[in-house]
Amino acid sequence: MEIRSFKEVVLKYKTVFFDAYGVLKNHRGLIPGIDKTFEHLDKHNIDYYIVTNDASRSPELLANVYRRKGLTCIDAEKIVSSGMLARDWLYMKIKSGRVAYLGTDESAHYIESTGLKTMPISQLDLDDIDDIRALVFLDDEGFDWNNDINKAVNLLRKKNIPTIVANTDLNYPVSRTDVAVAVGGISDLVERTLGKYFIRFGKPDAQMFMYGYEKACLRQYVHPDEMLMVGDTLFTDIIGGNKFGMDTVLVLSGNTLPENAEMRISYTGIIPTYICESILT
Amino acid sequence: MEIRSFKEVVLKYKTVFFDAYGVLKNHRGLIPGIDKTFEHLDKHNIDYYIVTNDASRSPELLANVYRRKGLTCIDAEKIVSSGMLARDWLYMKIKSGRVAYLGTDESAHYIESTGLKTMPISQLDLDDIDDIRALVFLDDEGFDWNNDINKAVNLLRKKNIPTIVANTDLNYPVSRTDVAVAVGGISDLVERTLGKYFIRFGKPDAQMFMYGYEKACLRQYVHPDEMLMVGDTLFTDIIGGNKFGMDTVLVLSGNTLPENAEMRISYTGIIPTYICESILT
Amino acid sequence: MEIRSFKEVVLKYKTVFFDAYGVLKNHRGLIPGIDKTFEHLDKHNIDYYIVTNDASRSPELLANVYRRKGLTCIDAEKIVSSGMLARDWLYMKIKSGRVAYLGTDESAHYIESTGLKTMPISQLDLDDIDDIRALVFLDDEGFDWNNDINKAVNLLRKKNIPTIVANTDLNYPVSRTDVAVAVGGISDLVERTLGKYFIRFGKPDAQMFMYGYEKACLRQYVHPDEMLMVGDTLFTDIIGGNKFGMDTVLVLSGNTLPENAEMRISYTGIIPTYICESILT
Amino acid sequence: MEIRSFKEVVLKYKTVFFDAYGVLKNHRGLIPGIDKTFEHLDKHNIDYYIVTNDASRSPELLANVYRRKGLTCIDAEKIVSSGMLARDWLYMKIKSGRVAYLGTDESAHYIESTGLKTMPISQLDLDDIDDIRALVFLDDEGFDWNNDINKAVNLLRKKNIPTIVANTDLNYPVSRTDVAVAVGGISDLVERTLGKYFIRFGKPDAQMFMYGYEKACLRQYVHPDEMLMVGDTLFTDIIGGNKFGMDTVLVLSGNTLPENAEMRISYTGIIPTYICESILT
Repeated sequence: MEIRSFKEVVLKYKTVFFDAYGVLKNHRGLIPGIDKTFEHLDKHNIDYYIVTNDASRSPELLANVYRRKGLTCIDAEKIVSSGMLARDWLYMKIKSGRVAYLGTDESAHYIESTGLKTMPISQLDLDDIDDIRALVFLDDEGFDWNNDINKAVNLLRKKNIPTIVANTDLNYPVSRTDVAVAVGGISDLVERTLGKYFIRFGKPDAQMFMYGYEKACLRQYVHPDEMLMVGDTLFTDIIGGNKFGMDTVLVLSGNTLPENAEMRISYTGIIPTYICESILT
Repeated sequence: MEIRSFKEVVLKYKTVFFDAYGVLKNHRGLIPGIDKTFEHLDKHNIDYYIVTNDASRSPELLANVYRRKGLTCIDAEKIVSSGMLARDWLYMKIKSGRVAYLGTDESAHYIESTGLKTMPISQLDLDDIDDIRALVFLDDEGFDWNNDINKAVNLLRKKNIPTIVANTDLNYPVSRTDVAVAVGGISDLVERTLGKYFIRFGKPDAQMFMYGYEKACLRQYVHPDEMLMVGDTLFTDIIGGNKFGMDTVLVLSGNTLPENAEMRISYTGIIPTYICESILT
Repeated sequence: MEIRSFKEVVLKYKTVFFDAYGVLKNHRGLIPGIDKTFEHLDKHNIDYYIVTNDASRSPELLANVYRRKGLTCIDAEKIVSSGMLARDWLYMKIKSGRVAYLGTDESAHYIESTGLKTMPISQLDLDDIDDIRALVFLDDEGFDWNNDINKAVNLLRKKNIPTIVANTDLNYPVSRTDVAVAVGGISDLVERTLGKYFIRFGKPDAQMFMYGYEKACLRQYVHPDEMLMVGDTLFTDIIGGNKFGMDTVLVLSGNTLPENAEMRISYTGIIPTYICESILT
Repeated sequence: MEIRSFKEVVLKYKTVFFDAYGVLKNHRGLIPGIDKTFEHLDKHNIDYYIVTNDASRSPELLANVYRRKGLTCIDAEKIVSSGMLARDWLYMKIKSGRVAYLGTDESAHYIESTGLKTMPISQLDLDDIDDIRALVFLDDEGFDWNNDINKAVNLLRKKNIPTIVANTDLNYPVSRTDVAVAVGGISDLVERTLGKYFIRFGKPDAQMFMYGYEKACLRQYVHPDEMLMVGDTLFTDIIGGNKFGMDTVLVLSGNTLPENAEMRISYTGIIPTYICESILT
């Protein structure tokens, strides 16, 4: 496939969804020069959202990271995170009681904002779980894996409650070379240990794209085929965008390397509409 | 869990989604007496849809089956089939060329209604595939499995095209005791043989529920928590409805037997809001 | 990794296991010149066996194919096929009654040679299954997939009997470009449709290597680390040989292409002891 | 299926393999009265071995636990642990350098007994890994999951080395109600995070049964169909024993409860030769 200019390709669309890591930022921080790409979008009246598997902190805090680094056009309204889907689910389905979670205090914001009481697994007394109504996997940090993963397993053996995974990713990059296991991987471990089935939110699941789509439509009506998903990963961004009916751009600035993009597309059968070096060009 | 009366439970909801097999019909045909349930719904102004993993024939023909058997309140507008999602995807994403398929002529209606040209795999010449733009798995009938499954495998080895599965079910009942392999199972076989990733439509995927939800909202606005999904299978109907944020009823008139409903709920962690014997009570 | 000369590498070993397809033969037949390699082995007193996932015909008939093409050193004693493991299992575990199968008449030899009565699924009367003691998946040919796969599913729903898969491969090559679904893939389809667990024989499973090892030891005692497995596929030959404790050669004359051998080894973590172009060099 | 007397059933066999947990011991320790069963075996000259997925300590220490509790007939020669297979593999395949591991110091015995140098992941410097030749998952205890699981992931990203799983179990019981995640589950998490393929030792894999079989044959020659595998778990003990060609006993004193044994056998298609309440009867 031909490498295309992102700034040209994007002109055909009304609304763009950007994956965060590998597209807007990398291990060093914001990719230098992307502010010019956002100016280009603003100038051509193209709407945009950051669609990210992340429940580590609130949309406001996620947006602040971009603003502090100089991308002032990003506010909480521009963020679509898998944590928001988990939050809405809890709001709809759990009306009382406490919600246990694995994650940081910051990530617990997603539960607290629904008005529900939260309980970190570390502080949970397994003999006092009558009013525990759900368990949520929010973030890989903020708890002791040795103790709390086993405690989560045994909570679910004692009480059959809905279990929500607020980020389905298996890992995330922490430096140029290193990755860390993400909370999606930890939830898989618990799910397989138990043989149960959890409720999972995050790309490539259609619900994530639908959520972003509805948000975009509140500003201006747009049809899926006037929208573009931009991502660095075939298995989340591209297959998810394709299935939702959007056109897709695979960028080579992150997870998929220029030297094996073609081969991966051919092996997986996951075919982006376009390939671009990055969103800078 | 307590067994509840469906006719009572349903009064709390504005809109109901029914799975077809095991809920409305079984191997003998329509479950006798369900017309009374639909009268009950009409009387209380409760809207309803049949949400079914089926791409074997058009919504019109699917509706006709109910009408012919005396359920005259069902017309094509009441049908939400996984074939309709496949159809819409093709309409959005494929603009020209031919679409290859596995299934009956009747099932090919879903492709033809988009204006695209169709080509059953059996008649495809593997040396003339330049204008083949997609492959669709529609139905388990209408083709020779020995020849045409292998031919589909080799088409996808020769040409990297989007592949759509219009019904994700692994099997379906054909008599009181027997089942048949469904097209979802056949597509799995091809996918695993190739190591590729197909685009799959059908419960429990959220897109199916979203499609029905949007259809329901065209008639009257409804919030997901005012809706009820009724099904006989934990792995498709109940987990899908739960994830979408609807309340759910597990009926014991189909795939889940009264004697092991509790145990399956406990093992799988897939928890319906209610259990009812059937929709008759 | 460095490309090594097979004829040099092999001198360090007492016994060699060869995969068949991609190593000894390809879509055109026997790879020209391999008789010289076998002369080299004979000259240096290196013992050898063909270890193959194949239950399509008896060891005698498998050996005949090589002999007819001029590789006269191959006789039935040199063949280790997954069909032989299935045969031995049936001999040990099934003492009476009939054994149902999917495959050709030739493949049924593996059952008949145990003295058991065979019954092709196509001729089975599902109302007369009292004395059916096992089901065996032998070959992808010799039966009507549309009818007989569903019939196998329903046999196993009616009667809980051991089910044996005599070849675990998902596909096999039929020409330079084309493959066919193998019986291992068909058995997966049936297993997933039912949610049951079958007994599977074939590489990379250790039992296959153990079987060949015991055969080799009957001729002369050998320790696994004096043995070499030669194959073209990381997922069967190499991981299986490695796990059994043998050294392994990945040849680039079949399934693994020279241009992506390194990358596949790195991605999969399946590391052969050596890489050779083919067994000719 | 009829419930049989173990002491009667066992008289037909020359050699018995016992799973440990759920058969010989439970959360309270040794099951009271099993010494009588072992006297029965000794009296009838029936040989026995404990075949266990365990790499937490040496065969000597594993045997000591039984001896200290009064089962004096058990010594290290009677133990077949998955750790022993990992040990033998390392001995055959790794000739120099250091072996990194996750587990307790006691579990590292399996590596040290081969003469290889060991390095707990916690103390490994990721910039000094030139002589690290393999990674071994030994036990779920003895390391900090938060740090060391991620460190193991990044070791394998930096260096493509064989990775051995010395116990494939997903979990193990720690009290009447609670379980803990086992090292097999942790290795799955790392494997899936990386997309790599590890070498796994433990039931139901045939290599485990072969190892025990060879050990038994050193004492007296026995044919697999003169042997009996006794276990409480269909997915490890029973399917593994069945596949190896042994007869099998499912006991109801552990993981499989009397009330759903029949149903699980029917659902899974994993059929033991006999069902016994426990080995006491």
